Amino acid sequence: MLKQKYPSHLLEDAVDAIASLPGVGQRSALRLALHLLRQPSEQVHHFTDSIARLRDEACYCRTCMMIADGEQCAICADRSRDRQTICVVENVRDVMSIENTGQYHGLYHVLGGIISPINGTGPSDLTIRQLTERVAAAKDSALEVILALSGDVEGETTAFYIYRQIAPYGVKVSTLARGLGFGDDLEYADELTLGRSIANRQIFKP
Amino acid sequence: MLKQKYPSHLLEDAVDAIASLPGVGQRSALRLALHLLRQPSEQVHHFTDSIARLRDEACYCRTCMMIADGEQCAICADRSRDRQTICVVENVRDVMSIENTGQYHGLYHVLGGIISPINGTGPSDLTIRQLTERVAAAKDSALEVILALSGDVEGETTAFYIYRQIAPYGVKVSTLARGLGFGDDLEYADELTLGRSIANRQIFKP
Repeated sequence: MLKQKYPSHLLEDAVDAIASLPGVGQRSALRLALHLLRQPSEQVHHFTDSIARLRDEACYCRTCMMIADGEQCAICADRSRDRQTICVVENVRDVMSIENTGQYHGLYHVLGGIISPINGTGPSDLTIRQLTERVAAAKDSALEVILALSGDVEGETTAFYIYRQIAPYGVKVSTLARGLGFGDDLEYADELTLGRSIANRQIFKP
Repeated sequence: MLKQKYPSHLLEDAVDAIASLPGVGQRSALRLALHLLRQPSEQVHHFTDSIARLRDEACYCRTCMMIADGEQCAICADRSRDRQTICVVENVRDVMSIENTGQYHGLYHVLGGIISPINGTGPSDLTIRQLTERVAAAKDSALEVILALSGDVEGETTAFYIYRQIAPYGVKVSTLARGLGFGDDLEYADELTLGRSIANRQIFKP
């Protein structure tokens, strides 16, 4: 789409700002800007203030590196959670996905990314050092570290790198079960997944 | 999608604010909030400030009711434009579409909507009164009013209503040509469009 002529510089600035968001084009940005222009002033200020406050005030939990309102996130502060298990994830969205399952009651460690030479992300760009320090500090307890990373090459590389860093401390390291999803059809499963599902078959417990 | 548990109230507020935009769901809103959190502080403040300024400072041109930076929009202020032609459109996006064609050099009148009983929009919610006043004020000149409204029932209703308001002033009233679009295939054209295209056929000028 060609660069449009806007009737107002204010409108143009707002559209350009909105269009700078990933996945939002000029046309959607214009639609959103005109929508915001029609809303009550308080609502637009609530919108902009809540975004500015997120950027200005949100911190990272000093333990698990998750986005938090203060120095410690709600999960690390919750004394009812299992402190002997640390689930290592790529980002806060993965934390939310796992929390939504209701199946996990331990702590987390947010890496802030994944090792990816192609994107220029190395181990030092992630919070692997902080994870190693956590593991080292808990050396006397029966700690389990779950590597809940994606199943692609980058995820496997990152998992292997982390394993090498923390294994010397004698912790139990586990990874997510891989196999056929619930409701998946055998016929349409890829060979790698199906192969692993057979190799890692489990005792049938009806 | 179920209501998610967010690790931070700041994050939750920002996600809720972004998800209040039309066409943006909770999942996209979270992705955008996390994107903004990773951007430099100045960039996020430029984003929020430009939206707040649009809402606080943008005005409507007192002549054509288009969004403007001041009392008069750039088009109405441009003395090189043909002041004998007023193109009536639904909203500012239509102005931009017509401007992008480069085929029109007159003025505009932005209705701010379309007559739609189903959405509760009546003639008094639009700027039809201001249009009638413009037409009345130009009574001595050879004014042409182009009704550039959409071709659906609501557009036709609005065009007919406006025609009844301004026809008494003796102005020339025209409407957009309807017919087959450029590159359209006869086989796939709807009957109404094709029928009108035949009825309003034009002299072939090779």
